[in-house]
Amino acid sequence: MSNQNTAISPRRDENYPEWYQQVIRAAELAENSPVRGCMVIRPWGYALWENIQRVLDARFKATGHKNAYFPLFIPLSFLQKEAAHVEGFAKECAVVTHHRLEVDATGKLVPASPLEEPMVVRPTSETIIGEMFSRWVQSYRDLPLLINQWANVVRWEMRPRLFLRTSEFLWQEGHTVHATEAEAREETLRMLEEYRRFATEYLAMPVFEGEKTASERFPGAVATYCIEGMMQDGKALQAGTSHFLGQNFAAASNISFLDQQGNHVLAWTTSWGVSTRLIGGMIMTHADDDGLVLPPRLAPTHIVILPVLHKEETKAKVLEYCTALAEELRAVQWDGRPLQVEVDTREGRGGDKVWSWIKKGVPLRLEIGPRDMEQDAVFLGRRDLGHKERRSLKRAEFLAEVPRLLEEIQANLLARATAYREARLIRVSSEAELLEAFKGEEGEESTKGRFVLANYAEDRAVEERLRRDLAVTVRCIPLGDFPRGACIFSGHKDAPTAIFARAY
Amino acid sequence: MSNQNTAISPRRDENYPEWYQQVIRAAELAENSPVRGCMVIRPWGYALWENIQRVLDARFKATGHKNAYFPLFIPLSFLQKEAAHVEGFAKECAVVTHHRLEVDATGKLVPASPLEEPMVVRPTSETIIGEMFSRWVQSYRDLPLLINQWANVVRWEMRPRLFLRTSEFLWQEGHTVHATEAEAREETLRMLEEYRRFATEYLAMPVFEGEKTASERFPGAVATYCIEGMMQDGKALQAGTSHFLGQNFAAASNISFLDQQGNHVLAWTTSWGVSTRLIGGMIMTHADDDGLVLPPRLAPTHIVILPVLHKEETKAKVLEYCTALAEELRAVQWDGRPLQVEVDTREGRGGDKVWSWIKKGVPLRLEIGPRDMEQDAVFLGRRDLGHKERRSLKRAEFLAEVPRLLEEIQANLLARATAYREARLIRVSSEAELLEAFKGEEGEESTKGRFVLANYAEDRAVEERLRRDLAVTVRCIPLGDFPRGACIFSGHKDAPTAIFARAY
Repeated sequence: MSNQNTAISPRRDENYPEWYQQVIRAAELAENSPVRGCMVIRPWGYALWENIQRVLDARFKATGHKNAYFPLFIPLSFLQKEAAHVEGFAKECAVVTHHRLEVDATGKLVPASPLEEPMVVRPTSETIIGEMFSRWVQSYRDLPLLINQWANVVRWEMRPRLFLRTSEFLWQEGHTVHATEAEAREETLRMLEEYRRFATEYLAMPVFEGEKTASERFPGAVATYCIEGMMQDGKALQAGTSHFLGQNFAAASNISFLDQQGNHVLAWTTSWGVSTRLIGGMIMTHADDDGLVLPPRLAPTHIVILPVLHKEETKAKVLEYCTALAEELRAVQWDGRPLQVEVDTREGRGGDKVWSWIKKGVPLRLEIGPRDMEQDAVFLGRRDLGHKERRSLKRAEFLAEVPRLLEEIQANLLARATAYREARLIRVSSEAELLEAFKGEEGEESTKGRFVLANYAEDRAVEERLRRDLAVTVRCIPLGDFPRGACIFSGHKDAPTAIFARAY
Repeated sequence: MSNQNTAISPRRDENYPEWYQQVIRAAELAENSPVRGCMVIRPWGYALWENIQRVLDARFKATGHKNAYFPLFIPLSFLQKEAAHVEGFAKECAVVTHHRLEVDATGKLVPASPLEEPMVVRPTSETIIGEMFSRWVQSYRDLPLLINQWANVVRWEMRPRLFLRTSEFLWQEGHTVHATEAEAREETLRMLEEYRRFATEYLAMPVFEGEKTASERFPGAVATYCIEGMMQDGKALQAGTSHFLGQNFAAASNISFLDQQGNHVLAWTTSWGVSTRLIGGMIMTHADDDGLVLPPRLAPTHIVILPVLHKEETKAKVLEYCTALAEELRAVQWDGRPLQVEVDTREGRGGDKVWSWIKKGVPLRLEIGPRDMEQDAVFLGRRDLGHKERRSLKRAEFLAEVPRLLEEIQANLLARATAYREARLIRVSSEAELLEAFKGEEGEESTKGRFVLANYAEDRAVEERLRRDLAVTVRCIPLGDFPRGACIFSGHKDAPTAIFARAY
């Protein structure tokens, strides 16, 4: 153990993966369940998901999408309609084969009544939604068809990690149909940009937008775009994807329509999704050695008030003072919702209570005892500062400052994460430099990872070698203003910049 | 065919079950999917579910509950923990037995990698949630534990019907743990009352609150309470249930705690749920021979504006007038949300467009053409009145009246449904009268069903006979002020009033 005490043990620099588990445990966000690979999302974690849903759902609707719901099960014959698709998902499916249980001769409960055709629990819904779309789309007047689904999906996971890789997870999947390739491509990039904005403005997580190389493409897609964030161990996290599916799924499901000239033509489709993985990304971007740190715009609770109640004679008055303050704060609108305030009146030691909220990442803490009350003051702690950096403020002053404080914290977190990322971006101009940059790091559980930028002409053999030898992948060919130049592997001229990294 | 044309064919009095399917189809609420027993909920139907969720979720939170999420899968060993429970659900389970697919010698996709222990897709979550609760509850300080989950569940259904009985459906399941029996019983009835309020105040569906008899109890419950509505064919629909589970599931999952006296004691639990079935209930309570009729408080769209655009020279002006009116209406808050307004600018015949919104059940329709515009007026149709009963109003008058109009429609629907129910309630004082009341109705697809009230001392044999001979069940022993008296079957004195009916 170190001589500096932290609320989370081990610290990030001691054992990053274990630190991650302990942050989640200390904040009561989620835990492993007795069902292999499936997590339980506890109220504090689920409240984060609800906030993510609230913001994204409003954006999806503002961009013309409507929610709908499609079956959990996908018959094997549907999965098989798109060859690349079935190959991509066959290895990690939950397969339903029976529809009844019975007790056998030994008294054991066993599956009974086999299904004529087995089904998988949806790993994603292109094929079943495509079937419905083929019924709904008849004419150009039915297009664009812009649908989103909030749902659970299952991809069997041999090495599960809370929020990052679980056999079951929650997500949204957008599925759209368009009359032209241009419109479908535009939609793909529009939703990618929505994801980038959300990551930056709400999760306070800077991300690169880019296109995946062929070997990292969604099974069945023509082009897969992604947002990639950098975690505090320097590893990449793919935080959202948007796929231009071309006419592959339209052909597989026969989504065709009568165009304005009266011709029957195939449609163009897209799909795009983000999941509870975003919560893992948020944790690994902001949490510190004292636990979770929440961006205020997504925090289930903005402010916790901790009344200091150890003197019997002042107890009632302090409580009353705190409750009145909470009410006044709840009347303040910030970022489109009322301030969320909790008054912690639980029994127990004051110090333990304060630490429980630090570990939960609440942006602002107010400790209020008899003396604060006498001075009409509050004792304020900010989660983005050290836990000892507290100060006394007049009550009125605090009330006036709250919105600015929350905005400042939100901006601070983004600035900090951006600076962290910038310091760990390097550009290399040769294969040797790239190999050097990743030498000996994997498995060290260090915080030494980085994103390496280099010009790269796509080559599946190179990517296989990097993955095998270094556990490094091409995260994306970033969109935007990145220089083109000679490929560091092949020397091919005019190759785009790619981002190489280890990843979750 | 009749000589009176209706938008829905057949009419309710011709073929009630087929009418129900046609209302759903005409309103584009949902449809059968190629996955046996599973429905697709289309955007208009899903928007209703979103509104149901929005209102109920706020009420659950206001009564102290928090949302969380638990695994989709339940290992067979968990299901077996409560004997009555497993027996109740074993016959209708989707069983997951493999976690991979592979291609066999004939090129066919087949299940591979069998699981060590098969799992069912949750039909309900008492056992898996109980396991987690047993970890979370240690001391009386952890109680009450008040959790809700919004989720999909699967109960294999041989004769599915959209919204009413589908193999997969969406629901919420509340699960709570309490220190005492009294608190658990109080919670059970509190949530039942929330359901009654929601059904009455939002769905405009009058319901009886009552307790189920033993033969209709939730598998593993000590007492099951329900709300029961009457559909327009006089049949009952169980629209929500709340279960006092006693210590049955606490014992099965070992949910125990250290009480204030330092003793280890078993806790008391409850569970309660409503599902997408509520949408079926709403349809069958209010829809008419022209299609869906939506209670304004749950309508995805309150007002549709239909610009009359057939003259090229006035087209632009009429559109502008309609768009401006829509904007003005959207600035009005009603029932805690902004008015939801659509302007229907689709191509196509005006009449077809009007009828499409009638069939979708939108409360208010405004037709606006050049002449209306010149007079600064709107031509108003109300969905709760006949489609010919329309009137012209000055624009300003309409704007001022909108909130009152919507309230009036909401109240009208409840009053109408209540009157319908009252007219079909009869009280009998002998078995012969009860048999007479249900004679020859089942299968007649008529609207002649009714609720029969009679004093009844619980007897499983009587209930089996009624079910077998008449397809009639005891819907509940209603709560409230119902007379006690001699049982019509056994003559036992001081028996409570029960409600007998055919049911969905």
